[in-house]
Amino acid sequence: MTARLHAHQYGKAETRVVRILRDAPRHELRDLNVSTALRGDFAAAYLDGDQSAVLPTDTQRNTAFAYAKEHGVSSPEAFATLLARHFVDDVGPVTGARVDVEEYAWNRVLVDGVEHDHTWVRSGQEVRTASVTAGADGTTVVAGLRDLTVLKSTGSEFRGFLTDGYTTLAEASDRVLATSLVAQWRYAGTDLDFDGTYARVREVLLTTFAAEHSLALQQTLWQMGEAVLDAVPEVVEIRFAAPNKHHFLADLSPFGLENPGEVFFAADRPYGLIEAVVVRDGAPDAGDAWTRSVGAP
Amino acid sequence: MTARLHAHQYGKAETRVVRILRDAPRHELRDLNVSTALRGDFAAAYLDGDQSAVLPTDTQRNTAFAYAKEHGVSSPEAFATLLARHFVDDVGPVTGARVDVEEYAWNRVLVDGVEHDHTWVRSGQEVRTASVTAGADGTTVVAGLRDLTVLKSTGSEFRGFLTDGYTTLAEASDRVLATSLVAQWRYAGTDLDFDGTYARVREVLLTTFAAEHSLALQQTLWQMGEAVLDAVPEVVEIRFAAPNKHHFLADLSPFGLENPGEVFFAADRPYGLIEAVVVRDGAPDAGDAWTRSVGAP
Amino acid sequence: MTARLHAHQYGKAETRVVRILRDAPRHELRDLNVSTALRGDFAAAYLDGDQSAVLPTDTQRNTAFAYAKEHGVSSPEAFATLLARHFVDDVGPVTGARVDVEEYAWNRVLVDGVEHDHTWVRSGQEVRTASVTAGADGTTVVAGLRDLTVLKSTGSEFRGFLTDGYTTLAEASDRVLATSLVAQWRYAGTDLDFDGTYARVREVLLTTFAAEHSLALQQTLWQMGEAVLDAVPEVVEIRFAAPNKHHFLADLSPFGLENPGEVFFAADRPYGLIEAVVVRDGAPDAGDAWTRSVGAP
Amino acid sequence: MTARLHAHQYGKAETRVVRILRDAPRHELRDLNVSTALRGDFAAAYLDGDQSAVLPTDTQRNTAFAYAKEHGVSSPEAFATLLARHFVDDVGPVTGARVDVEEYAWNRVLVDGVEHDHTWVRSGQEVRTASVTAGADGTTVVAGLRDLTVLKSTGSEFRGFLTDGYTTLAEASDRVLATSLVAQWRYAGTDLDFDGTYARVREVLLTTFAAEHSLALQQTLWQMGEAVLDAVPEVVEIRFAAPNKHHFLADLSPFGLENPGEVFFAADRPYGLIEAVVVRDGAPDAGDAWTRSVGAP
Repeated sequence: MTARLHAHQYGKAETRVVRILRDAPRHELRDLNVSTALRGDFAAAYLDGDQSAVLPTDTQRNTAFAYAKEHGVSSPEAFATLLARHFVDDVGPVTGARVDVEEYAWNRVLVDGVEHDHTWVRSGQEVRTASVTAGADGTTVVAGLRDLTVLKSTGSEFRGFLTDGYTTLAEASDRVLATSLVAQWRYAGTDLDFDGTYARVREVLLTTFAAEHSLALQQTLWQMGEAVLDAVPEVVEIRFAAPNKHHFLADLSPFGLENPGEVFFAADRPYGLIEAVVVRDGAPDAGDAWTRSVGAP
Repeated sequence: MTARLHAHQYGKAETRVVRILRDAPRHELRDLNVSTALRGDFAAAYLDGDQSAVLPTDTQRNTAFAYAKEHGVSSPEAFATLLARHFVDDVGPVTGARVDVEEYAWNRVLVDGVEHDHTWVRSGQEVRTASVTAGADGTTVVAGLRDLTVLKSTGSEFRGFLTDGYTTLAEASDRVLATSLVAQWRYAGTDLDFDGTYARVREVLLTTFAAEHSLALQQTLWQMGEAVLDAVPEVVEIRFAAPNKHHFLADLSPFGLENPGEVFFAADRPYGLIEAVVVRDGAPDAGDAWTRSVGAP
Repeated sequence: MTARLHAHQYGKAETRVVRILRDAPRHELRDLNVSTALRGDFAAAYLDGDQSAVLPTDTQRNTAFAYAKEHGVSSPEAFATLLARHFVDDVGPVTGARVDVEEYAWNRVLVDGVEHDHTWVRSGQEVRTASVTAGADGTTVVAGLRDLTVLKSTGSEFRGFLTDGYTTLAEASDRVLATSLVAQWRYAGTDLDFDGTYARVREVLLTTFAAEHSLALQQTLWQMGEAVLDAVPEVVEIRFAAPNKHHFLADLSPFGLENPGEVFFAADRPYGLIEAVVVRDGAPDAGDAWTRSVGAP
Repeated sequence: MTARLHAHQYGKAETRVVRILRDAPRHELRDLNVSTALRGDFAAAYLDGDQSAVLPTDTQRNTAFAYAKEHGVSSPEAFATLLARHFVDDVGPVTGARVDVEEYAWNRVLVDGVEHDHTWVRSGQEVRTASVTAGADGTTVVAGLRDLTVLKSTGSEFRGFLTDGYTTLAEASDRVLATSLVAQWRYAGTDLDFDGTYARVREVLLTTFAAEHSLALQQTLWQMGEAVLDAVPEVVEIRFAAPNKHHFLADLSPFGLENPGEVFFAADRPYGLIEAVVVRDGAPDAGDAWTRSVGAP
């Protein structure tokens, strides 16, 4: 028997970095969760326990904090890019790096209608994500979000589907459609107005979800993807994973009550899970930009 | 040996009721998580397995859905009150009821700056809570919120504290103060503008947190409690549980970097946990309004 | 308007202390999550921001680690008692202390059937809990567990219940009964074989759940409580909170299949929640042993 | 601009199926969480809202329950294989299927040392996983586990690592090593004794972790992978993702206490994350066996 180390990577996950800009009375705040992973020839660490090529994950954590001070955090995408390039360019044995950042948004507290200088309330809405892959050949930036929970109380149907002997679902011509959206989009470049572009993509996602009639969540994902590619030229690819958060009409007939789409049971599990990848024609190759892990499911 | 059934209650927890008002093109939406618990003499169910006095928890769930249709959901407090009174007034063996409701807020999606009629994005900020206790003698309404996460990047200190042989903490004259607030407040009456009052209390909590300099989280809780009682006469008592979400200054000195309050490590555990109960002088007795459970920790 | 500080407490929650005994080749391990809360007259900290009576929560954390070294961890109950008494007896302004400990159990890995000296796999079954309340008048020890998930695939029914206009539940003469048990029991003394007593209570809970036919989860809780008081004289009171983890029979009739109690849908929410408190006749007064928080719901 | 639907799949996630065998007084129990995803040409559903090729996710859920009755659940791997082949072989438009199953283990309750016939306590240890990919060309079975939390209190070191200007970590010649292991292994065939093989792999993982001295978690993963491939010929590939659950030595020196590896702080975040893929020489191609999702991160 011969076993072979086929692939490997290692890093520091979930370093919680909070960066405050306090040069002026009006502070600025960025709240990040930073995960770094290094790629390269670390086989000796696995096969022989030889750590001479292994930069400790503890050092990776230190680097995240130090970089937040030295370079600031202009955006999660820019910060991830700086970190990823540092590991590849400055640390000898590292040939590739993957940096994933989550950002938690904070809104300024309003006092008498005026935004406060140094007090915030956490938005709690979607989590913004950035995933940067750096290698010898360049850098790829993927932006995204998760847990953007949206709901339409009408303007959604699901009819004309395939049936077999296990089908009991009735057609729905007017249903509640809700999802907790995960979306990730790849940029062509690495030098963008990341905050502005993020805001535009997010707005296109929301307005398309609102404005378009839905024949299925599948169609809605496609419509959102197409709209983003149409409206935001910097984006060359967008990926979706959308749980169909089912809202079942409560059966009130035993109590002599009609229920014309008014009272619903919001179910937890199971849920539909719809996925789609929409790509711009002529998009550059993604390389390993979509590979976060080699070992996790 | 003689064992005695000292206390008991039973109910249905976490019924997820979504109520949509669709009489007009502009829909309205309330998204609730309803838990009901019944009190009374159900000892025979425990001691003898005799269920003749036990209204099934399944029926309690049905009732929540049916009431959402029959009576609507004008507010979580009003809905909880209707349900609680129904169980006490209409179900023979029930002498007391406790109804806890969580509400998840949704914001309308803006399309070209205009609020959409039937599309929402979940706020994700604090969860609003209502806890109503009904008995033979009346009804008590407690409103509240949890997970309101707030942060001050300056205007907070912690000094002059007691020390002993296990103390290593340094005094802080300018620190980050953050908490994920849990607050519950008791009303004197049961017929209020619950939505409007909730909004006022929430605003007082946020603006007090922002405006007041903090010598300790303890002081901040007191300030918020006093301000709520001062500004909102309907409130006779307010209770707080506030985790001190520590933000530790990253030590960058090994890298030759200063860190004057700019880069922080947001820690998960352990955390300080500060609690306070502030009561209006002359407040009516709370009865068992603060007793949610008899068996849980 | 006069607002009054009615009650308060503060402490350090969830300090994760792992204690290893390595005096012999066969190590021993205790894995704890320690929460301490102090009571006394800390009103000045709230009202005036005066911290001179406030032992920092950071010091409480330090004390937990130092005590684990100085006194060892013979059991979670004994460790909590030592900590609680220390705060009351040794720290001037403290008149009461509440220490809650969770313990995570680890099993030794078996190598060729032999228990390994220093390698463990986490049990993952129930979490053991200990809650100690210390005051001027003495100390009360409450032991317990949570997340002990048990299931009977027969030997459970639910019939003869009260019905009203919202009842649709059918009687069940043979159903699946499952719960994720929370139990807490109070001891008369403070100097017990805590590990041995815990094991006995746990065994009585499990064997009673297994051996007794159930007419309702209410009855099962009573039977377990009575059996514990009967078998373990050190216990003077036991409290239960038991979610009824519903297993609904899958409806396979549309596919021409019978389902005589064989295939179930395990539902998440809503769930029944049954609570009971069983007390030994002549039990000493509990004081504030059951009061964990003054501010939390 | 031309947007293109590059990839897609859809399915039903987290159907909670509990199967009880009750033909004999001694019942058997399997407790599953089943997720199915279908692949094929469903582009019309996305592009045009045409559902004629789409078997509803509701039907997929029904099928999971019906198959549990019709075919039983001999193992999660076998059950996933049956379901996956059914979708590909029996549902016209489906050309590929991915079925992921989690299994929660239950242990029989012992009454007077005898295993009870129909009462269980949930193990709570690792979650067993099975992932089956079926296509026109065949079926690939991946087995696995997650949340197998293991700890060594000695026999682990980390020294001789690479340093740079951000390195502060000290070398450790005797540390606590702990991880919550995720492992997945691919089988060459589809007709195995899945339960027996799972038990063997699990035992090899645990005994290797216990018996081998560790120079780094990287080395330990390799050792475990090599040992599995060596001992279990059915396995052709194994993948690991192992968070390094850091246990930091508590600094007790301010209190005049030594701490020779006895008292640790178990940290939550950040954590090291080590990954490895070990393949048997000559292993067949994996195809898309490792592709669970096309849209999720």
